[in-house]
Amino acid sequence: MIVRPHQHWFTRLFVWHGSVLQKIYSRLLLNLALSISVIFFLPWYEALGIKLTIAPFSILGVAIAIFLGFRNSACYARFNEARTLWGQLAITQRSFLREAKSLLGTDERQIKHFVNLQTAFCHALRLTLRKQPNEATLKKYLTQEELQWVLKSHAPCNRILQLMADWLADKRKQGLISDVVWSSLNHHLNELSAVAGGCERIAGTPVPFAYTLILHRTVYLFCIMLPFALVTDLHYMTPFLSVFISYTFISLDTLAEELEEPFGTEDNDLPLDAICNTIERDLHDMDESENLPEKLRPNRHYQLS
Amino acid sequence: MIVRPHQHWFTRLFVWHGSVLQKIYSRLLLNLALSISVIFFLPWYEALGIKLTIAPFSILGVAIAIFLGFRNSACYARFNEARTLWGQLAITQRSFLREAKSLLGTDERQIKHFVNLQTAFCHALRLTLRKQPNEATLKKYLTQEELQWVLKSHAPCNRILQLMADWLADKRKQGLISDVVWSSLNHHLNELSAVAGGCERIAGTPVPFAYTLILHRTVYLFCIMLPFALVTDLHYMTPFLSVFISYTFISLDTLAEELEEPFGTEDNDLPLDAICNTIERDLHDMDESENLPEKLRPNRHYQLS
Amino acid sequence: MIVRPHQHWFTRLFVWHGSVLQKIYSRLLLNLALSISVIFFLPWYEALGIKLTIAPFSILGVAIAIFLGFRNSACYARFNEARTLWGQLAITQRSFLREAKSLLGTDERQIKHFVNLQTAFCHALRLTLRKQPNEATLKKYLTQEELQWVLKSHAPCNRILQLMADWLADKRKQGLISDVVWSSLNHHLNELSAVAGGCERIAGTPVPFAYTLILHRTVYLFCIMLPFALVTDLHYMTPFLSVFISYTFISLDTLAEELEEPFGTEDNDLPLDAICNTIERDLHDMDESENLPEKLRPNRHYQLS
Amino acid sequence: MIVRPHQHWFTRLFVWHGSVLQKIYSRLLLNLALSISVIFFLPWYEALGIKLTIAPFSILGVAIAIFLGFRNSACYARFNEARTLWGQLAITQRSFLREAKSLLGTDERQIKHFVNLQTAFCHALRLTLRKQPNEATLKKYLTQEELQWVLKSHAPCNRILQLMADWLADKRKQGLISDVVWSSLNHHLNELSAVAGGCERIAGTPVPFAYTLILHRTVYLFCIMLPFALVTDLHYMTPFLSVFISYTFISLDTLAEELEEPFGTEDNDLPLDAICNTIERDLHDMDESENLPEKLRPNRHYQLS
Amino acid sequence: MIVRPHQHWFTRLFVWHGSVLQKIYSRLLLNLALSISVIFFLPWYEALGIKLTIAPFSILGVAIAIFLGFRNSACYARFNEARTLWGQLAITQRSFLREAKSLLGTDERQIKHFVNLQTAFCHALRLTLRKQPNEATLKKYLTQEELQWVLKSHAPCNRILQLMADWLADKRKQGLISDVVWSSLNHHLNELSAVAGGCERIAGTPVPFAYTLILHRTVYLFCIMLPFALVTDLHYMTPFLSVFISYTFISLDTLAEELEEPFGTEDNDLPLDAICNTIERDLHDMDESENLPEKLRPNRHYQLS
Repeated sequence: MIVRPHQHWFTRLFVWHGSVLQKIYSRLLLNLALSISVIFFLPWYEALGIKLTIAPFSILGVAIAIFLGFRNSACYARFNEARTLWGQLAITQRSFLREAKSLLGTDERQIKHFVNLQTAFCHALRLTLRKQPNEATLKKYLTQEELQWVLKSHAPCNRILQLMADWLADKRKQGLISDVVWSSLNHHLNELSAVAGGCERIAGTPVPFAYTLILHRTVYLFCIMLPFALVTDLHYMTPFLSVFISYTFISLDTLAEELEEPFGTEDNDLPLDAICNTIERDLHDMDESENLPEKLRPNRHYQLS
Repeated sequence: MIVRPHQHWFTRLFVWHGSVLQKIYSRLLLNLALSISVIFFLPWYEALGIKLTIAPFSILGVAIAIFLGFRNSACYARFNEARTLWGQLAITQRSFLREAKSLLGTDERQIKHFVNLQTAFCHALRLTLRKQPNEATLKKYLTQEELQWVLKSHAPCNRILQLMADWLADKRKQGLISDVVWSSLNHHLNELSAVAGGCERIAGTPVPFAYTLILHRTVYLFCIMLPFALVTDLHYMTPFLSVFISYTFISLDTLAEELEEPFGTEDNDLPLDAICNTIERDLHDMDESENLPEKLRPNRHYQLS
Repeated sequence: MIVRPHQHWFTRLFVWHGSVLQKIYSRLLLNLALSISVIFFLPWYEALGIKLTIAPFSILGVAIAIFLGFRNSACYARFNEARTLWGQLAITQRSFLREAKSLLGTDERQIKHFVNLQTAFCHALRLTLRKQPNEATLKKYLTQEELQWVLKSHAPCNRILQLMADWLADKRKQGLISDVVWSSLNHHLNELSAVAGGCERIAGTPVPFAYTLILHRTVYLFCIMLPFALVTDLHYMTPFLSVFISYTFISLDTLAEELEEPFGTEDNDLPLDAICNTIERDLHDMDESENLPEKLRPNRHYQLS
Repeated sequence: MIVRPHQHWFTRLFVWHGSVLQKIYSRLLLNLALSISVIFFLPWYEALGIKLTIAPFSILGVAIAIFLGFRNSACYARFNEARTLWGQLAITQRSFLREAKSLLGTDERQIKHFVNLQTAFCHALRLTLRKQPNEATLKKYLTQEELQWVLKSHAPCNRILQLMADWLADKRKQGLISDVVWSSLNHHLNELSAVAGGCERIAGTPVPFAYTLILHRTVYLFCIMLPFALVTDLHYMTPFLSVFISYTFISLDTLAEELEEPFGTEDNDLPLDAICNTIERDLHDMDESENLPEKLRPNRHYQLS
Repeated sequence: MIVRPHQHWFTRLFVWHGSVLQKIYSRLLLNLALSISVIFFLPWYEALGIKLTIAPFSILGVAIAIFLGFRNSACYARFNEARTLWGQLAITQRSFLREAKSLLGTDERQIKHFVNLQTAFCHALRLTLRKQPNEATLKKYLTQEELQWVLKSHAPCNRILQLMADWLADKRKQGLISDVVWSSLNHHLNELSAVAGGCERIAGTPVPFAYTLILHRTVYLFCIMLPFALVTDLHYMTPFLSVFISYTFISLDTLAEELEEPFGTEDNDLPLDAICNTIERDLHDMDESENLPEKLRPNRHYQLS
């Protein structure tokens, strides 16, 4: 994710990092080349009786803008829901630990074990969503035995949840907590499960592919045909407006595609590393541990992974 | 469902599978034929004093785009709610089994029976929503007696829920779980019931038919009249723009209709088979069963049933 | 409600039942008459120096479309919320009965009484919302004494809820259920109360009347003035486009008004009879009663009451 | 609030009460005067080389319509949330009383006291939101001692909630209800608190003032400049269209402002008196009291206070 | 925050405080200068064959308005969610205290301590979100020991929550409250945690930066190019319309940016000081304390900090 820097409105017109301009500049150059060549071929194709006016493009432009606006809302809603789920994860983990600590009192080793399971869950969820290998990270938090059992499964997060459930059931069996208290603590387990399930749903089911396809097609066809329509009116100014209008439409189409899959590692995706880091720091802080991990900060291009 | 492949932006312009183009190409060909014939009849109907300008079509086009955008939102919201309900189903089944296991401990036969009931519920819901026969699938998970009792009803899902409730009530009567714990487990039964009820609602109540009708009519009439308005301005270019604009409007109208009923088996419908497969695999994995069913994968046209 | 039939896209252009066309055809004929007379009076009023161009109508048309789109969303949201509340009713009644049965065991007479109260509640809610008399229907489900007590009140649903609450309190006093179990069952009573309250709210508070009024006025004034603006450009084609544009705007205005009050008995209102029928059938099926009521089906015009 | 009367579509074009027309007719007359004077000054300012065309107003008109549509949604959402909160209030009070009655049984005096506290809460909330004095109304429901204690505070609703909490705590201390039952009843207190808090939030935080300001300004400037742009095209017809377009924009701007503060006593504000009356009648009916207050009905202008 | 004053519609056209006009007037002056210079250079650049018509700007204008409308919704939703979270904070704190008081009875010192912790939490959240130092404020509410322990952490709110949890756990260990009651009270702690977590999420994750960037760019480029397009049609009137259209677009772009970060201290940000003040006053009032802090009121520019 790009962390929004505070910039002067004028400076911002020329920002390169974090915009989608990096991704689409080649397509805009193509549009520019097309617009320029159209100027030269204008006399030739006017002679053929071919003419395009701007009026039908006005209908098309507005229609596409409306549908693009709709797709953007849908993709942003996915991004936002994903962020809210990860926010929920942070909230639940903190409440879970607070309750566990205030109920079970002073057995520090048990609490440390529990904090490790909590942290492992967050990292496992992050790595699974990003399709990265789990082992190297998880072995910091799990015992050898736990690690092997977790990695044997196709769903490591789920197994870590089971480890937490076992930890809790163990306390109940020892008579340390009553059924009522168990029920209160167990509620957090269900919330963690809901967060993981929600993230899987977002990662597994994109916006219906036909939406993406129809809009992609209409946007690009529109931008390809636009210079031909603009040239009779604007002549030498065609390239300016053609590239400008194309930028507006293509950049929003491209951004929507980025936001649609918020768990990736692109510029506008969620900073899962940083969120995991925050949760880990918060949990260690609650446990008054001395060795808090270093806080992750954005790099010099304002990127936070 | 079509799983979104990662394609170059240029390749994507020519994708055939998963677009609604397959469904509507004949209508677009009709529009093409009309546009071409309009060019030839232009002198004849201009002589009659008939003229259509583009300006009123601009009002109509924008109005239709706005209403189409609204209907698309409504249909996508149904698709999204349906997906969320099935996501909820997966979450609940996993939490349910996790709680059951950690509370009831080690009686493996009982747990296996419970997992079978859970799996049967998912399949029964899927098959009921798709109006497919239940028997062949359910007999893998239910005993003969259970199966007969379930199939006797017009609402098999509901009966399977009752079997689960009986299983739970049985544990309570045996004194294995207190009322508090029963209440916690029973909550998941209510959630399963809510998922089934939500899906029935979506399947049973479409977007008000008059919306579908009004938009269908205005979109098609608009596309039929469009060539007559474009031809005076664009002449030989009429077919290009007429087909392009028609594609934009008709494809979105058609897609909205697909999304409106998300439980079908069309390209943009929900992959219920794959979701059931995932839930079944997750439950068996939690139960550390050896024989996990094979993971369902998209076919070579990126389709996931 | 009209159940959406599966029709060919071409057939659908000529559907009569279930569209709002039945309601508004006289207004469209008026618009047609006006458009035709405008053609004849054109030379006369051009001589007077009166001229209307299409450009200001373009601004108005788009503005009205946007506000109409907004009102449609608001009215559809009411329709959708109403449907969701009735879906919730079905879910709650089933969960309620399932819990009651699995906790109280085998006293069939008591359960039958409870099922009757549940069914009576659904019918009373339906009849109250539609402002139809309750007595004839309720006497099938309530004892004479109960019936009289219920009908004495201005809020029969609420009294039936009290009967259910008494039934439940009775079981608690007899020591059949603990406070925890009572709390779980009582939760369903609160949900039923919330459903009834939600429906009352929708029935009692329309979309602010001024919205309806402003949009009604602007839409109709727009349609009345439209032929005068179109005629200079389109001449003989005026009636076609004037009626087409009027159809688009007036039909959506009229549909929004229908959806605003979803508990009526118009074509696009909710099929409360059918939903009550489904709930009754489900409850009887859960109780393994022999005499399930017949399933309600749409009539030959695809209408479901 | 204006209760929507069932009117013929034609009659509705001339409705006066309940529209915002009462509020804005003077501004429309100003616009009319401006439009007429513009016709006379046209030759003079054309000689000065001043010309305004409709095209830039088309851009502005659509942009303003979109932003106005957005503000309307935001204000309507506030209205709707406020109505839902008051609906929640009715639901909670009824559930609260039902539970209290079925748990505490037959001590009628205690229940009557409780009903009085419930009613006092509703009235206090209504009067606080409308910034009207509480004393005259509250003394009907509270004892002298309670009344003085309640009125001493800047937050009477909150104190009445405390009285209800004390009533409940008293029952718990007497051993009439267990902790589980107390928890169930207390949940309703929290809901009442949430309703009051939600209403305070809506009353205390308007839509950001700059939205109101920017839209107010652009709408009025737009309407002021509009006649100058229309006059070159439309000449004598300018006043008709200028006033019509102004009506569309100004009435929606004004309505949004009314809906933004739904607790007032304007035509489109919530009928808090009627809602309180309904709750009071429902509670007395549940308590089988003889003297139900008279039902509030709309006056002859369909207004419900 | 600017508290909306009740103004005449005419006065409001000239309001300065609370509009974003203060922020953007220099940019509008730049636009004015550009528009004027364009008038003088018109003959010169027409001679060069450069021409810009308004039609492509119409497409652009509408497209930008739609996307700006979308971004405004997203930013307003953040503002609204932030306000709702703070509303939730007030509700929870009051319910928490009411429950604590009615359950624990008369130990005033304990309750006073608890009220201090509650107040400290609100202030710590406010100061953390605004990145202001905590110490000076918190030392009014916390003991020396508590203060040091809280300030040692990077997350003071979280530590105060732990102090509240300890307070609660202490009561449970003393046997003053049962597990059921503890569970009810503890629920409020989780809600406070959720409020803090929700605020952190809003503060930490802006709307994807590329949205801000793309819209900022297109809006400003549009406003820069607009005078060139308007001048051929409007000539001397160019500056009026150019500045007017620029004001509409730039002010909404700027306002969206303000609302995006609702925890700042700008004109349209949330009045966190006032909300904290209200909560503190309410809590003290519930505790019947004599020394309520003074109510915060807007300053003479209607600003509430």
